[in-house]
Amino acid sequence: MTAIDFQTTPEQYRHWQLKLDGAVATLALAVDPSGGLRPGYELKLNSYDLSVDIELNDAIQRLRFAHPEVHTVILTSAHEQVFCAGANIGMLQGASHAHKVNFCKFTNETRLALEDASAHSGQKYMCAINGACAGGGYELALATEHLVLIDDGAASVSLPELPLLAVLPGTGGLTRLVDKRGVRRDRADFFCTVEEGVRGKRALKWRLVDAIVPRSKWQDEVAARAAQLAADSDRPAQGTGIDFPPLERQIGENQIDYGLVNCTIDRTLRAAHITVRAPASAPPSDLATIYNEGAAYWPLAMARELEDLILHLRFNESEIGTWLMRTEGAAEFVTAVDTALAAHANDWLIREITLYIKRTLKRLDLSARSIFALIEPGSCFTGTLLELALAADRSYMLDGAFEDDNRAPATICMSATANNGLYPMANGLSRLHSRFNGDNMALAAAEEVIDDELTGLEAEELGLVTFAPDDIDWEDETRIAIEQRAAFSPDALTGMEASLRFAGPETMESKIFSRLSAWQNWIFQRPNAVGAEGTLKLYGSGKRPQFDKERA
Amino acid sequence: MTAIDFQTTPEQYRHWQLKLDGAVATLALAVDPSGGLRPGYELKLNSYDLSVDIELNDAIQRLRFAHPEVHTVILTSAHEQVFCAGANIGMLQGASHAHKVNFCKFTNETRLALEDASAHSGQKYMCAINGACAGGGYELALATEHLVLIDDGAASVSLPELPLLAVLPGTGGLTRLVDKRGVRRDRADFFCTVEEGVRGKRALKWRLVDAIVPRSKWQDEVAARAAQLAADSDRPAQGTGIDFPPLERQIGENQIDYGLVNCTIDRTLRAAHITVRAPASAPPSDLATIYNEGAAYWPLAMARELEDLILHLRFNESEIGTWLMRTEGAAEFVTAVDTALAAHANDWLIREITLYIKRTLKRLDLSARSIFALIEPGSCFTGTLLELALAADRSYMLDGAFEDDNRAPATICMSATANNGLYPMANGLSRLHSRFNGDNMALAAAEEVIDDELTGLEAEELGLVTFAPDDIDWEDETRIAIEQRAAFSPDALTGMEASLRFAGPETMESKIFSRLSAWQNWIFQRPNAVGAEGTLKLYGSGKRPQFDKERA
Repeated sequence: MTAIDFQTTPEQYRHWQLKLDGAVATLALAVDPSGGLRPGYELKLNSYDLSVDIELNDAIQRLRFAHPEVHTVILTSAHEQVFCAGANIGMLQGASHAHKVNFCKFTNETRLALEDASAHSGQKYMCAINGACAGGGYELALATEHLVLIDDGAASVSLPELPLLAVLPGTGGLTRLVDKRGVRRDRADFFCTVEEGVRGKRALKWRLVDAIVPRSKWQDEVAARAAQLAADSDRPAQGTGIDFPPLERQIGENQIDYGLVNCTIDRTLRAAHITVRAPASAPPSDLATIYNEGAAYWPLAMARELEDLILHLRFNESEIGTWLMRTEGAAEFVTAVDTALAAHANDWLIREITLYIKRTLKRLDLSARSIFALIEPGSCFTGTLLELALAADRSYMLDGAFEDDNRAPATICMSATANNGLYPMANGLSRLHSRFNGDNMALAAAEEVIDDELTGLEAEELGLVTFAPDDIDWEDETRIAIEQRAAFSPDALTGMEASLRFAGPETMESKIFSRLSAWQNWIFQRPNAVGAEGTLKLYGSGKRPQFDKERA
Repeated sequence: MTAIDFQTTPEQYRHWQLKLDGAVATLALAVDPSGGLRPGYELKLNSYDLSVDIELNDAIQRLRFAHPEVHTVILTSAHEQVFCAGANIGMLQGASHAHKVNFCKFTNETRLALEDASAHSGQKYMCAINGACAGGGYELALATEHLVLIDDGAASVSLPELPLLAVLPGTGGLTRLVDKRGVRRDRADFFCTVEEGVRGKRALKWRLVDAIVPRSKWQDEVAARAAQLAADSDRPAQGTGIDFPPLERQIGENQIDYGLVNCTIDRTLRAAHITVRAPASAPPSDLATIYNEGAAYWPLAMARELEDLILHLRFNESEIGTWLMRTEGAAEFVTAVDTALAAHANDWLIREITLYIKRTLKRLDLSARSIFALIEPGSCFTGTLLELALAADRSYMLDGAFEDDNRAPATICMSATANNGLYPMANGLSRLHSRFNGDNMALAAAEEVIDDELTGLEAEELGLVTFAPDDIDWEDETRIAIEQRAAFSPDALTGMEASLRFAGPETMESKIFSRLSAWQNWIFQRPNAVGAEGTLKLYGSGKRPQFDKERA
């Protein structure tokens, strides 16, 4: 099967119309029915598959970076009558379990990226629901900060997944209803069992939307509300944005190379060796040069490449169960980048870059792969790049040097700017705080040595790495760990890692991933949904599903 | 198959030895290998099935109520060398998915009941791990507040579920490691992949246990630590406890009758009509009479009966998917009970009674059944019994009276003592707060009318009930809702309800149920665990499982 590619450009969009008008941009959904990722289903009624979301993800990213002047983004439909029918059922019928799970994860990340823009970028998303808005369509709307529903006696919002398909809304709908919008749980219960959804005044009263507007006032009212949301923004009123040129990459059978990130796949070990390289030379410290470098500026280029690799491996290399993270290059250049990011934290572009790194690191946390960091001489696990090790399920750090290797022993280094809250996880904590959750003494000891270069033994003693074997043990110890990982059940590993990675508090975001997603995955496996007599198999056949009536 | 019965007495225990010695009680696990609930497996090495947990649950309850003088409970093993091998694998191999899920839920509730005793009853649990402590055995230990491990070079703690069985520790182990004990996530990752577990100093250093003690000092040290824990207790040093006589109940084919609770099963609608009755006469207000009534005191008797019914329906009536909750009797007697519970809140027995009601209501929240409250004339949804309606997924309240029924229209009534924090849900919030999560205006409006008797329309307007149909609509509206519920996929309903019931914050407890359990349920369905070539099917056969290597 052709590999799924997450790179696209607005010129290539088949499903979205992007209109720019000063402070307000409009993204109108106009799904090309024949534009699906795979043959075998038609994307009718603005229903979507991954191809639609790949474009949405691209549009959200570009709006943030290329258009500082855009302060509000209106999501709407290019069709009258139909806003969006949600995920395409034909696609779901044909998709493997792993694809369904991966698809839901990516769409969830996209919706959270949109909420991240509203919350942190001064670019507020609102949704102008100009027609029937069902399932994943309504979940997309729920991810915006302001929902306006056309009040024409016909348009409704609905989550018909349960009555129609015997599955759950898979992109955060249930959680956002009760946790984000404060919809009462009993109303949410009713709403989620009514296939036809809720319209007009009840939708407003039940907090399912923020406003209802008659057709006669629609355009004006939507524009007025968009302008009002835009007024609060702290983004610049004008300015030059950053364009994203196509990523330079070469994808071979077992080798994926970008400029700063590369990956070698070991199919025997079912492991991907991923290396992230520090800037090759001293990075700029002044804004003018940074703007001038644009997409080539190291942290931005690194985030784009790493993100693309993560998505590629998730979707196209599903049997490669272990990701081995290495870094390479001059730690002082990574530190110089972190210093510049901190110095210009109030600049809108710098803010976007750190938010992008944050989201990319979150993708790592949420990847259903075992992640080991391998910290060796020549590496630069410092500041922003140390997050790669802190995101890992385990880290192995060589204490000392390899025989016949005259490079200095590896050190790691925490920075107060990069490792202490700049890149929070889905649970709202830094990776450092998550790591020491419940052990405040260990946390305090680690915080004492921020900015120090730590050897393997020091890092191990402080709890910043898992193990620090020496040259004699390194090879065996890491090899056994990697081999062992390949021998375990992938499902059990996924469940274990999802449980151990997120100690501490939960947020709406972590609830969506670790709770709603787990339930949805369960339901996606159950005979009532995917069995021969299940809803997904029989949908469209005219036959009624036969349910196993047992409650579990 | 014989119905599973949750009632037992210490005289009937086959698996636990209870020893009382002043302030310290010892519960020693001595599983009878042939004492399992079903034929076909042997409970070797102190491994357990539900029968072991039914006794543990009974013992925990009785220790709280019958023994005010017990301030510390030591969990240990009656065998040298083996503490507990965890859930019996033969049992898991033969069990249906629904039974496995139900079993895990009940064992989780039992472990939380033990934590509840430590936290709120002045009865601290500690664990004296005197031999190999694996899987569910270690998870049981993790539920205690103090873990002492014998340091004999052999005894270890372990969570071998993933390497051995390709499933997760199912009773909170992963969550308790990182969230309760602050075990670092990377150490937890390592620990959970090492079949043989961790012993001695490393177990201590990694916070897997609180102390290690050599065999020579074992008895003395365990006793000393138990005495120390007991010293902090606020339970009385002596006093008369409450014995639990056998529940009087009659279980017929479609009818289950207790003294205060009864249940009629409608197999066509797959619904259970559950009615809880108020005290038949004015309840006592003074402690002496309450003590004298003992287990017959209304709130205690009601909690015991309701709990037994919940467990019976969960395990023995798995196709009865909807529970319809009604109450009956004099609201003023319910209020009088609530007043007495509040007046004597500092008494250890009254505290136990409210904690028991709390745990029973939590069982309701956690039941994988649709719960509707039907509020009709003659009902008494007030205070403690109003929690039954607030726990429901929906509530229907008749506005006005039925034709030809001269009873007064139903009212409901919130009480500040019972509905505002006395019975928190797993998320730590009252049901009232969970209901209005995110809608502080609605919450404030509801709090204004605490103690008022509210009609159907008033309750609906305030958001305390879902719908308040009148006599004309009642029959159709409730019937359609119940029929509809029976037509939906049971799995999807379970996932939806689990997602909507717990708005707001998460706690360790809610994480265990809504996150870890969902992952475990998923894994319990996957071919790698339960397929023809999966671990559970092949365990003990000498064959190695063949895993689908795809990561999802």
